[in-house]
Amino acid sequence: MQKAFQEAEDAFDKGEIPVGAVVVINNRIIARSHNLTELLNDVTAHAEMQAITAAANFLGGKYLKNCTLYVTLEPCQMCAGALYWSQITKIVCGASDEKRGFRAMGSQLHPKTEIIFGIMEQECSNLMTTFFKNKR
Amino acid sequence: MQKAFQEAEDAFDKGEIPVGAVVVINNRIIARSHNLTELLNDVTAHAEMQAITAAANFLGGKYLKNCTLYVTLEPCQMCAGALYWSQITKIVCGASDEKRGFRAMGSQLHPKTEIIFGIMEQECSNLMTTFFKNKR
Repeated sequence: MQKAFQEAEDAFDKGEIPVGAVVVINNRIIARSHNLTELLNDVTAHAEMQAITAAANFLGGKYLKNCTLYVTLEPCQMCAGALYWSQITKIVCGASDEKRGFRAMGSQLHPKTEIIFGIMEQECSNLMTTFFKNKR
Repeated sequence: MQKAFQEAEDAFDKGEIPVGAVVVINNRIIARSHNLTELLNDVTAHAEMQAITAAANFLGGKYLKNCTLYVTLEPCQMCAGALYWSQITKIVCGASDEKRGFRAMGSQLHPKTEIIFGIMEQECSNLMTTFFKNKR
């Protein structure tokens, strides 16, 4: 989650909503990314979406079995939907998203996917709060 | 919807699940795409996702205001999530997806988005049925 947090800090420095993601298989990082919606002018360029695409590219197959996604913010319904299709084994989240997180929006993960919330929650949450405070 | 259906037929011919999408603004097509999850080995490569990215690229901004998406199959929760973020004005759907469609999965579109179901429903649905029958 430290590496995902570094990615979120990179996003912060670029003026992007600070969310970072890393995909790990067998203790090895195979994808790392951060939110790029502003730079790419693309609502689909969330950290998780890029990490899913990059990890599948690395693995040469579209399913992320035995992979863990570390992400600094609870995924939105788009990212939860992509994670559903990927059948990823595990997701580890930092901050929760009470408004636009997949749980609040009613979306579903794949039944095979385990999810853990609240890892480095305070740091991840503080980075978001600082970002939006600076925007105002 | 005819153009979206042609895209779905292109997907069919490539052995991809036959879903096609077109984005229109002021009666002009600004994006057309079909499902490429097999070719790209990427669960995120749904027709709608590509159409959203292409349309935003064409417009030079990430919001699809005044745009209409024509899509041959009801969007899944990932695509509905992306459409939510895009704040697209209108969605016109062909076939419904009782299992994995965003309505069955509990996902939400943006409150600003109007959606219409059942346009060329039979053709769109038949193409899917034929595809999966051939797969067996």
